[in-house]
Amino acid sequence: MVEISRRILSKENTFLATRATRDVFQAVKKIDKRVQYNEAGRIIFIPNSEQKGQISIVTAGTSDIPVAEEARITAEVMGSRVISIFDVGVAGIHRLLDKRDILEKSRVIVVIAGMDGALPSVVGGLVGKPIIAVPTSVGYGANFSGVAPLLTMLNACASNVVVVNIDNGFGAGYTAHLINIQT
Amino acid sequence: MVEISRRILSKENTFLATRATRDVFQAVKKIDKRVQYNEAGRIIFIPNSEQKGQISIVTAGTSDIPVAEEARITAEVMGSRVISIFDVGVAGIHRLLDKRDILEKSRVIVVIAGMDGALPSVVGGLVGKPIIAVPTSVGYGANFSGVAPLLTMLNACASNVVVVNIDNGFGAGYTAHLINIQT
Amino acid sequence: MVEISRRILSKENTFLATRATRDVFQAVKKIDKRVQYNEAGRIIFIPNSEQKGQISIVTAGTSDIPVAEEARITAEVMGSRVISIFDVGVAGIHRLLDKRDILEKSRVIVVIAGMDGALPSVVGGLVGKPIIAVPTSVGYGANFSGVAPLLTMLNACASNVVVVNIDNGFGAGYTAHLINIQT
Amino acid sequence: MVEISRRILSKENTFLATRATRDVFQAVKKIDKRVQYNEAGRIIFIPNSEQKGQISIVTAGTSDIPVAEEARITAEVMGSRVISIFDVGVAGIHRLLDKRDILEKSRVIVVIAGMDGALPSVVGGLVGKPIIAVPTSVGYGANFSGVAPLLTMLNACASNVVVVNIDNGFGAGYTAHLINIQT
Amino acid sequence: MVEISRRILSKENTFLATRATRDVFQAVKKIDKRVQYNEAGRIIFIPNSEQKGQISIVTAGTSDIPVAEEARITAEVMGSRVISIFDVGVAGIHRLLDKRDILEKSRVIVVIAGMDGALPSVVGGLVGKPIIAVPTSVGYGANFSGVAPLLTMLNACASNVVVVNIDNGFGAGYTAHLINIQT
Amino acid sequence: MVEISRRILSKENTFLATRATRDVFQAVKKIDKRVQYNEAGRIIFIPNSEQKGQISIVTAGTSDIPVAEEARITAEVMGSRVISIFDVGVAGIHRLLDKRDILEKSRVIVVIAGMDGALPSVVGGLVGKPIIAVPTSVGYGANFSGVAPLLTMLNACASNVVVVNIDNGFGAGYTAHLINIQT
Amino acid sequence: MVEISRRILSKENTFLATRATRDVFQAVKKIDKRVQYNEAGRIIFIPNSEQKGQISIVTAGTSDIPVAEEARITAEVMGSRVISIFDVGVAGIHRLLDKRDILEKSRVIVVIAGMDGALPSVVGGLVGKPIIAVPTSVGYGANFSGVAPLLTMLNACASNVVVVNIDNGFGAGYTAHLINIQT
Amino acid sequence: MVEISRRILSKENTFLATRATRDVFQAVKKIDKRVQYNEAGRIIFIPNSEQKGQISIVTAGTSDIPVAEEARITAEVMGSRVISIFDVGVAGIHRLLDKRDILEKSRVIVVIAGMDGALPSVVGGLVGKPIIAVPTSVGYGANFSGVAPLLTMLNACASNVVVVNIDNGFGAGYTAHLINIQT
Repeated sequence: MVEISRRILSKENTFLATRATRDVFQAVKKIDKRVQYNEAGRIIFIPNSEQKGQISIVTAGTSDIPVAEEARITAEVMGSRVISIFDVGVAGIHRLLDKRDILEKSRVIVVIAGMDGALPSVVGGLVGKPIIAVPTSVGYGANFSGVAPLLTMLNACASNVVVVNIDNGFGAGYTAHLINIQT
Repeated sequence: MVEISRRILSKENTFLATRATRDVFQAVKKIDKRVQYNEAGRIIFIPNSEQKGQISIVTAGTSDIPVAEEARITAEVMGSRVISIFDVGVAGIHRLLDKRDILEKSRVIVVIAGMDGALPSVVGGLVGKPIIAVPTSVGYGANFSGVAPLLTMLNACASNVVVVNIDNGFGAGYTAHLINIQT
Repeated sequence: MVEISRRILSKENTFLATRATRDVFQAVKKIDKRVQYNEAGRIIFIPNSEQKGQISIVTAGTSDIPVAEEARITAEVMGSRVISIFDVGVAGIHRLLDKRDILEKSRVIVVIAGMDGALPSVVGGLVGKPIIAVPTSVGYGANFSGVAPLLTMLNACASNVVVVNIDNGFGAGYTAHLINIQT
Repeated sequence: MVEISRRILSKENTFLATRATRDVFQAVKKIDKRVQYNEAGRIIFIPNSEQKGQISIVTAGTSDIPVAEEARITAEVMGSRVISIFDVGVAGIHRLLDKRDILEKSRVIVVIAGMDGALPSVVGGLVGKPIIAVPTSVGYGANFSGVAPLLTMLNACASNVVVVNIDNGFGAGYTAHLINIQT
Repeated sequence: MVEISRRILSKENTFLATRATRDVFQAVKKIDKRVQYNEAGRIIFIPNSEQKGQISIVTAGTSDIPVAEEARITAEVMGSRVISIFDVGVAGIHRLLDKRDILEKSRVIVVIAGMDGALPSVVGGLVGKPIIAVPTSVGYGANFSGVAPLLTMLNACASNVVVVNIDNGFGAGYTAHLINIQT
Repeated sequence: MVEISRRILSKENTFLATRATRDVFQAVKKIDKRVQYNEAGRIIFIPNSEQKGQISIVTAGTSDIPVAEEARITAEVMGSRVISIFDVGVAGIHRLLDKRDILEKSRVIVVIAGMDGALPSVVGGLVGKPIIAVPTSVGYGANFSGVAPLLTMLNACASNVVVVNIDNGFGAGYTAHLINIQT
Repeated sequence: MVEISRRILSKENTFLATRATRDVFQAVKKIDKRVQYNEAGRIIFIPNSEQKGQISIVTAGTSDIPVAEEARITAEVMGSRVISIFDVGVAGIHRLLDKRDILEKSRVIVVIAGMDGALPSVVGGLVGKPIIAVPTSVGYGANFSGVAPLLTMLNACASNVVVVNIDNGFGAGYTAHLINIQT
Repeated sequence: MVEISRRILSKENTFLATRATRDVFQAVKKIDKRVQYNEAGRIIFIPNSEQKGQISIVTAGTSDIPVAEEARITAEVMGSRVISIFDVGVAGIHRLLDKRDILEKSRVIVVIAGMDGALPSVVGGLVGKPIIAVPTSVGYGANFSGVAPLLTMLNACASNVVVVNIDNGFGAGYTAHLINIQT
């Protein structure tokens, strides 16, 4: 990973390495001082000062934050402005309703949830924006490591919900950026 | 079915036959004039004038009504008072919030949903009552004939949600009655 | 369905009813002459003359066309311009490569495939646009009615692929429109 | 976890933390001397002297006891009286039949079983009370970490059986308490 | 089927054709007058007057009787004595306990159940004989056409339970006969 | 485990503890010198000098031997005579055919196989005896920890094959003994 | 289908249409008299007089013959010589052993089996040739429409077994031809 | 493993041990100096100087290389000439198209891919040769340890694709050799 990083850093100004340990970060940091590390999202990256448009990233619980951070850093490194709204799961629906104004101003919303994965349906019903739903592997038993929220999201009753693989914060952030920069 | 009905009707004052066609009803009606037929729920039953306590039966969509009717007739025949609240799915969350007062007055709430099966989590978060969740086979593709909402409900983030088999309106109505009549 | 249609048509200028038979169409046509019927996509709709932006809808095979038509009519009724590219599956990759220019000009691409569901990965790799992948239930045996292409798409190696439920042309067309009209 | 515990303990008299290690307990004990630890159920809690009504918690085997303890402590902390009946699985049916009197006096019964998960059907047939069935991940091979007993319980031939997620002693205890305190 | 039957009947005195319609029976009857038809079990066979040993065939419900009849006729045609005990499912455990004496006198017991498939565990615990468990496809929803009782039986807590395929009355009757005639 | 062993050993002359480590054996050995340990099968037991009838235990590969040893010791401790035939899998069918005479003399045959699980079908076709098939978790990938051979065995084309849970050597040995001692 | 056939027949001398009804055949026959119909395999084709090399096509049972015919016609139309060996399933292993000489002379062997799918392992062990295994949907219950033999074949203990989709006689015949004509 | 290796090496000139650790290699090296070790493929082998025909081994990503090396060493040890083409996955389709000439000259092509498993369909469409597809367990979430690419490959739209078990480089290399040496 360090070797690939060296090769990219010698040619590019954009850098993003997901699912990286702090040890790898330390090694990459020696190659290029611009890189930073996001502990929760386990990402090494070069920050991007440009921040266009608006993406909201919403999580159901605090355990979903690592995936949210992976999505946020990805979108920011590519040049999108991101607003994070954490821990507004459907079992306490009023916390979500309070954020409606922010959501309405986003061009695209990434909604991240484990367990029952019910949040994207509710957000999609509240706000007529493209919703990228990310199931997480948070849960146990009949959660089947994220299969339960994945199925919930594929069956969302709101029509503006599209889905990515379990824990795929990177893909969600990447596609959200592509949608956000459409002009 | 008609034969079993005849045997029961000759001994009992309570009568309930689920998943029955109108033809069977016509035949049973000839045996005992007290029986009635609920078209949507496909149930033959003798109405019970006694109506104790309060059970709310809530559905996400209109396609879930047959299962709701099976649950309602079951609970009513056993002697419970039932209030039905239909079509308050999570993609239009305000329709549900408007019903909060009624839900708060129930001793137990049956929540019926197909597709993403997200409704019980939201109801369970709103109201601190026992919630009996019933997944329905309404949906297509990755719904897998009700498996998606079943898993959603088993993983509900609200702690007061218990679950019955797909389309099992009878079991939900039966158990709701047992809970409702606890004194 | 006819009754619901009457209610909507009396209030709205936009009309779209999916998974409708020709018989239902005939009945709705009597209520409102503006409605048309798309045979392949099994949709009743009122055409919309406004056509903004550009969505490409791509299918792997000819059997995927019904889902593509559902997506196309949905997006058009909402006001998007749609270009359809059919039968460019991965087993004849040059047919797809020939269409690269059209794809590059789209703001969002809907890619529809059954069997192995491999097409979205290839399109996503060719063109840096948001790709909405729709698995179809075309196939047999270990296809499991669309589960095989659904999994393929959720695991797409291209990072700009998001997925909807099996055969969900409506959701794909709807979300594609939302992305297309971002300005 | 310790930090969250501190915050709760500063405001509340009720305290319950499930799936906690002894190490976490030691740290929380330093914050508030009232907390106790249940080793089998891996729960930190403040005991509640109030004990209303009656819940029976029944297990099929001794390996199911951790889940039973999680359910018992949960219900007791909330203020319910609980009677535990362990190791009365269906392969020795007479051990269960001997307990019928106690079961009859309960307002709600939590039945916990792994392997074949057959016990709730039998208990539900014996006693006309609401039965909350908890599948456990006890078993191997075609048990699939609790899926086998989960399916058994969802298909229980007794009509008064409702189900929670695999190993979800907390949810069972919580909902049992809500049912128990109905008056 | 008729052609194969003719060939066998011209050479053999033992004849058994499972999953046969009444029409096929009528045709085979014309070839050989000795054949009889069992309606419930859908079997054409030549009765065997020899009846050795003792096999008990037990069902949980009345819907399981067709599979039981397939098993019974198979074992009888091969020369075993069979006792049938129907509708003694676990939700009414006393009906089963009343039959303990008969079960104790059997050399092998075939136990047939759909829905939760819990009966073989109970019978196996009651009587120290080889138990052949047959799951049936009786049930709905999370029964998955017999998968639920199949898994229950493979995980039976009694150690003397072996299992055959869903609805495989023939295999159960055949193997039961082989065990019964061991001397 | 040691404590339970002490209790049993103080009352019984038959002793069998499966899935036991050598450490547990050392501790139990101190309580009762009669116990022995089978390393491959991981069983602690008191040998039984009585050896009645004949059971053959057949494995497809050498990796299946631990399950075979669990079955053998179980049957021997109960008083059956056992003959072991290892490594005669279907990919070298002649090794199996050479053993036909021994198989023919058995009252019941336990056939143990992982990977494709094809051996019981072949043995069942060769010898008209009751066959108890045991799938093992030997394999990788689409073996799904023994699900592949389990399904193979449930679908065996030989009619005299019954099945137990994956790796359940104990249940197979136990039931084989019950069949073997029928007189 | 008729229209596509007309287009192909006007340009090509090779013609093959699988999964075709007799009605379609009648229509195509009117377009081009050279076409023939294989009833069992449901294929319309123009026979090819050239027959190179040797492919053996082996089935476990008679119910697998339709898939075998689809494979045979496919390979013959492309120019391969095919020898068919039907009904040599593993439950009667000697029928297969008798055919060893023919199998040894083949350049590639297609082995077709439903139910337990055990035949390819045995054939692969007997003969050191490439084996193309085709699972069929013949079976019931835990066969899951061909999933059981599919898994068996993917886990074949013989190393020379490759697999195609359930009931895919066409793909097996096609690839067998490509292997057969290698020179 | 060392013991079995000693036995084989004393009799054979061909040697191949897959899934072996470096430690085992060191021990085997002491027995016979001819053996070498392939780190990536984890194989111990005696090189074979004979190299007939041509097999191409193609991977989608760099993570698939271990399986590719297992396949390559297997085929080479048996006497085939192998050309390796790595990291030409479908998300960058031109890298693959550049290799078309080499692929056309192969007698058989092994295509190895994890994640979406889409590569074999594309290669099979490009080149009319037998394609052996190997799914790998590279991926996460809805990849299910290689099930996603396995299903993709079984449903490949190209007709010349056959499949082996997940990560089964050995079987692919072995069968590819058998096809390659057909003359």
